[in-house]
Amino acid sequence: MRINKDRLWDRLMEMATIGAIGETGSRRLALSKEDYQGRQLFTKWCHDIGMTVTYDQVGNLIATKTGKNPNLPEVMIGSHLDTQPNGGRFDGVLGVLAGLEAVQILHENKIQPIRTIKVVAWTNEEGVRFSPSMLGSSVYTGNLSLSSALATKDNQGITVKEALSELSPTEPSPPTNFPYAYLEMHIEQGPVLEKKNKTIGVVTGGQGLAWLDIKLTGFSAHAGTTPMSMRKDTLFAASAIWRKLEKMADKFVDSNITIGKIHTENTSYNTIIGELYFSLDLRNAEIDKLDSMIKKTKKIIKKNCQQRKIDFTIQTNSISPPQPFNQSCIKLIDKTTKILGYSKMSLISGAGHDAILLAKVCPTAMIFIPSKNGVSHNPTEYSTPEDIYKGTNVLLGSCLELANDKCSRFD
Amino acid sequence: MRINKDRLWDRLMEMATIGAIGETGSRRLALSKEDYQGRQLFTKWCHDIGMTVTYDQVGNLIATKTGKNPNLPEVMIGSHLDTQPNGGRFDGVLGVLAGLEAVQILHENKIQPIRTIKVVAWTNEEGVRFSPSMLGSSVYTGNLSLSSALATKDNQGITVKEALSELSPTEPSPPTNFPYAYLEMHIEQGPVLEKKNKTIGVVTGGQGLAWLDIKLTGFSAHAGTTPMSMRKDTLFAASAIWRKLEKMADKFVDSNITIGKIHTENTSYNTIIGELYFSLDLRNAEIDKLDSMIKKTKKIIKKNCQQRKIDFTIQTNSISPPQPFNQSCIKLIDKTTKILGYSKMSLISGAGHDAILLAKVCPTAMIFIPSKNGVSHNPTEYSTPEDIYKGTNVLLGSCLELANDKCSRFD
Repeated sequence: MRINKDRLWDRLMEMATIGAIGETGSRRLALSKEDYQGRQLFTKWCHDIGMTVTYDQVGNLIATKTGKNPNLPEVMIGSHLDTQPNGGRFDGVLGVLAGLEAVQILHENKIQPIRTIKVVAWTNEEGVRFSPSMLGSSVYTGNLSLSSALATKDNQGITVKEALSELSPTEPSPPTNFPYAYLEMHIEQGPVLEKKNKTIGVVTGGQGLAWLDIKLTGFSAHAGTTPMSMRKDTLFAASAIWRKLEKMADKFVDSNITIGKIHTENTSYNTIIGELYFSLDLRNAEIDKLDSMIKKTKKIIKKNCQQRKIDFTIQTNSISPPQPFNQSCIKLIDKTTKILGYSKMSLISGAGHDAILLAKVCPTAMIFIPSKNGVSHNPTEYSTPEDIYKGTNVLLGSCLELANDKCSRFD
Repeated sequence: MRINKDRLWDRLMEMATIGAIGETGSRRLALSKEDYQGRQLFTKWCHDIGMTVTYDQVGNLIATKTGKNPNLPEVMIGSHLDTQPNGGRFDGVLGVLAGLEAVQILHENKIQPIRTIKVVAWTNEEGVRFSPSMLGSSVYTGNLSLSSALATKDNQGITVKEALSELSPTEPSPPTNFPYAYLEMHIEQGPVLEKKNKTIGVVTGGQGLAWLDIKLTGFSAHAGTTPMSMRKDTLFAASAIWRKLEKMADKFVDSNITIGKIHTENTSYNTIIGELYFSLDLRNAEIDKLDSMIKKTKKIIKKNCQQRKIDFTIQTNSISPPQPFNQSCIKLIDKTTKILGYSKMSLISGAGHDAILLAKVCPTAMIFIPSKNGVSHNPTEYSTPEDIYKGTNVLLGSCLELANDKCSRFD
């Protein structure tokens, strides 16, 4: 049993016409007119195969295909239908339509699994119109209160509550019971699968992340009259620090270190930069390693600044610990991929996903497929019909096996 | 014979009341109402001791004390009276008033040297109101045509010609004959004399200077999903380059290397910087060394960018070769300082000065005195009355010896 490759591709292309930008872009901001149109189209497809479609209090769309034993906790699969302002055709929407495709193939093959399958489209994953991102799954998993989510305003002053007024929610968020398991298929949004020539990324969890703000204060002086030995040049201090941080990244396996923002007031060729701000984004899949990266970073900054008599401040903007996925779910995806004969590799998710929140409340895992040139959040975002087909077959196989669990495999 | 310490100090303070900013700042932009008031006050003091005051075609003020043999080329001393917008009390004005003080002491001691002494205040040295800086001395020395200087506009659209309309120039610029020698006393505008605890800087010339513009183009990607090994991170490429440039500065004695401007479009923590611009200010007193610094810099940029598969462009904004001062003038200042018993050291001028232009047309040298904390172009700019006294005595002694040269010492 395999999914219908052309139908899924055609649906992806049809969905992309809603809020289309140019040939290949989409703009469907959360709870906008376009997002509602997308949800309506998706609902129509769900209704066509006898699924019921309901909403919870934060607007998460839940399409239900009842199992033989509706009393057992359901298997949930899905992702999100909202996009970036200048987004592509695959980020999010792929996971939702692949979920529907998996259910549709079971429906067409007259297979009713033991457990109910729910296909979900989470509200405001992108965090573009409303902040924070992953708003719907955050409320669903109890990580954000419903009241504060509903009070969140977009930049026009419209609240989530107002933007939700078209919907009639019938289910509480958070729900009374969490799913048996949650699976999400998504484009990688990075270059690894493509570079390594693998089709399926078996995602083992979400990276831990720390954001720091660093400010160096030296002395702004004349480039011609101040000998090198008498300077307090924050740019040279920073570059010594950055060199060491880049080398540190080599030592911590699978760590990412990014200086994303730099700011100086200087605008002249011949003035030494006296003040310099930079941001630091540190990532690792293991909390211990992330902690040591933070500690080592602080040590590097302190040592280099002291040597150069430069003052510094380090502020922690945020720290999100790593979120490992469920081992049993990871193994299931790995096994299913193997049975299907597709190439695969283990991966950490570097970006945020609804699945990372779901992992806090139920057994969860993700399936990645390759992103051309690692690009996402852009109309040039692309995954091949073949990779989409294969990834969705892995989703189908894994979901079906979970949905046929009479007893919990997680106990 | 020594100069009058209190009179010079009091005159510096009185001049500073024209265009005063707060307690210790001055703002006398070139050819502004305040600059004219400053020139009038200076003219009055010159007239008091029987000097004639004239202007050349670009508004350079020339106060003349005739020598016994007015047919011999004159000794010229001076600097400028215009200031930065938020300037101090010493930069420029010290050299003009010290010149007057030297002439006044000779006058009071009834000493008439063989050669005429001219005290000059150059027009628009600071280059704040009109560009380029050192406009008056550039025209005087034939490095800028009078017509283009007169056509230069300030940001209100007022030309130099219009701003000069209050004056009645009587002398051509460039002049018919250049001076016998030119001496300029100035604050150091750097920290070296203070740090080395020396009173007199015997300036041996002006540094050579190259300004380069460098742009690196890598790839902007997601900080979470792009492994370090697959990045084209221009910030890390730049920091590797900057580290090597800082180390290169150690190898070239008395070189200065400054990255004054950095620019990126990036504004997020979690995006790799795909494009980065930086400026480069390279200085050395020797043309050969400056040339090798430029060559080595290009090599460093090329090598590091190629290793990281990052594209780059290097544009030369400007190159000014070093300008050595006259050996005989340098020795004279050194000898005079020694006779007076003041501590001294040789120095290169890192900043631009009118003297650097004069050095192209006549024997020239400069005397530096310490700047507190190396600060200039700021109301906190400060030199002690004692250092000013000593520096002016060196100017007096050196000027008098030159003015008593019957035959040229430079032939």
